[in-house]
Amino acid sequence: MLKDLTITEFLEQTASSEPLPGGGCTAALNAALAASLTEMVANLTIGRKEFESVDDEMKKIAKTAADTRKKLQNDIDNDAKAYQEVLAAFKLPKNTDGEKKQRSHAIQQAFKGAATVPLGVARETLKIMDLASRAITAGNPNAVTDGAVAVLAARTAALAAAYNVKINLSAIKDTQFVDELVREIEELESQVIRKEKEILSQVVI
Amino acid sequence: MLKDLTITEFLEQTASSEPLPGGGCTAALNAALAASLTEMVANLTIGRKEFESVDDEMKKIAKTAADTRKKLQNDIDNDAKAYQEVLAAFKLPKNTDGEKKQRSHAIQQAFKGAATVPLGVARETLKIMDLASRAITAGNPNAVTDGAVAVLAARTAALAAAYNVKINLSAIKDTQFVDELVREIEELESQVIRKEKEILSQVVI
Repeated sequence: MLKDLTITEFLEQTASSEPLPGGGCTAALNAALAASLTEMVANLTIGRKEFESVDDEMKKIAKTAADTRKKLQNDIDNDAKAYQEVLAAFKLPKNTDGEKKQRSHAIQQAFKGAATVPLGVARETLKIMDLASRAITAGNPNAVTDGAVAVLAARTAALAAAYNVKINLSAIKDTQFVDELVREIEELESQVIRKEKEILSQVVI
Repeated sequence: MLKDLTITEFLEQTASSEPLPGGGCTAALNAALAASLTEMVANLTIGRKEFESVDDEMKKIAKTAADTRKKLQNDIDNDAKAYQEVLAAFKLPKNTDGEKKQRSHAIQQAFKGAATVPLGVARETLKIMDLASRAITAGNPNAVTDGAVAVLAARTAALAAAYNVKINLSAIKDTQFVDELVREIEELESQVIRKEKEILSQVVI
């Protein structure tokens, strides 16, 4: 599993001429980093007298961020698996008309899977941005830059995921599926760009 | 060493209420990811008949990106070490005037170190963006989204590093040192924001 590699190994394997791990895995990793840093800000706020009034809220933020982090770290591997399925589908036999039809269907299904994983990452990332925003404004100010970095990582995660959604959609023939996903991912992109500006405008050092 | 942690462990330790690893480590990690993805695009271009005309150039890009990746993955730990030195300096004895003076000096020196590490990360990141830009325009177009994700990761790395430079500068009394670093980091921030827009405007999917 990619999530069990060391940081050094993950970087080395990304750098190699093997197609995996690639940009889709970096997207999921950044989303998980955004969740981790949000959790950290909440954890540095919880249980401290001066932040008593937001203690319950920060506990909820830490819990949701932790759940999302675990989901997103699995998406590093899910993204790789989805792409491996595309490669496997291309290797199916194509000797008869029946085989050709089956192979073509399998390729289309695999691309749909490969577009759906990063779409899920982008959706989760948007939720993390809202948690990070609240952690920045109401959490321990000593950790404000960690919250800001969470937001930066979230933007990279969502926009990187969007590239991966779109590149996979470009191979899909089901126009209704493509139109729906294009609409959703472009809406997510605009929201992420807008939210990042709004949240970071409140971080003054 | 942080770079020897698994991805899962790194995310868990970031999420905890311990101050390290924090946003500065995420900055260095993203810079290293940007280098890795740039290297990947170059490696997917090298040795292929259709990209023969840029083969030498891509070999140089892969080599420089690999060297920079190794440097940046060490910066994940250098950033943590620099912050540990700040914490250690605060724990120095302050019973006599001599001790107080020594402690104060050590704190100032430690903060200078903690500002300098992310400044170095931001500098390296800008170089990686230029390599990524060239890999995107002249490299294997099948890897164009990986190149785009490199640029997104580079932006997060540099802007995250900038937050960490500034938060440490806010504790430093040597105004000449502060002014010089503020000038450089703000210049780097503008360049990174401008370059990201320029490069990504050329990536059409």
